[in-house]
Amino acid sequence: MINPFDDTYFMKKALQEAELALAAGEVPVGAVIVCNNQIIAKGHNQVETLNDATAHAEMLAFTAATNFLGSKYLKDCTLYVTLEPCQMCAGAAYWSQVGRIVFGASDEKRGYRHWQCQVHPKTEVKGGVLADESEALLKTFFENMRR
Amino acid sequence: MINPFDDTYFMKKALQEAELALAAGEVPVGAVIVCNNQIIAKGHNQVETLNDATAHAEMLAFTAATNFLGSKYLKDCTLYVTLEPCQMCAGAAYWSQVGRIVFGASDEKRGYRHWQCQVHPKTEVKGGVLADESEALLKTFFENMRR
Repeated sequence: MINPFDDTYFMKKALQEAELALAAGEVPVGAVIVCNNQIIAKGHNQVETLNDATAHAEMLAFTAATNFLGSKYLKDCTLYVTLEPCQMCAGAAYWSQVGRIVFGASDEKRGYRHWQCQVHPKTEVKGGVLADESEALLKTFFENMRR
Repeated sequence: MINPFDDTYFMKKALQEAELALAAGEVPVGAVIVCNNQIIAKGHNQVETLNDATAHAEMLAFTAATNFLGSKYLKDCTLYVTLEPCQMCAGAAYWSQVGRIVFGASDEKRGYRHWQCQVHPKTEVKGGVLADESEALLKTFFENMRR
């Protein structure tokens, strides 16, 4: 049986969030959190809009998801995010004990794996889903910046 | 000339925040952010109250401070926090480029230094200010938990 709700499907939703960030002049990173094949939270980078260095896509999505569920834990949820989480967002993932993290592009500079940071030992991590699409959005942003 | 606004003075204010957390049944950690000898933001751990694993004292204080200043950077500010920041909060400190971090008790289990995490290279860090008072609050909390 075909499952339309696969990792690619939800990463496309995260990419739509990243596009909202791009349209707002933000570094285009988007995230959705999924529980039982349903999107329960969305977020896109709003650091400039909110003047808040903590307003990464994942952080906003974590807060929205825990608010929706009424639980500080996200053990049965999957975070889809277009870019590898940074140290801060990996730390938030640790505290939320999110069940799975699926990310798009790797972040060689600020990604948590390159900083030897940790997510929760029970969290499954998969990278590289629609990485090219995520990188294309980031490239567009930085090209616009240089103009 | 005596300066009443020293690190001990502001750490006492952070401890008052930690006491608010304790009274609310939260792990007692408190924080204040200071700019030009003025407290511009306060925060105490609200993870249980808000059902949000990201609602650490420092995170709430960072968001409040950047909101107050209208800037995502806190280069001329000092964060006073009663417990050594975790990976997430150290990551937030990195992004905010906070000028100084003064903390109370060390956190051997979850502290950012024990996880080989980073704050911004320009951030000055000082630990051990009123560490005993901070530890006493934490001890009270965990003793209450066991009862």
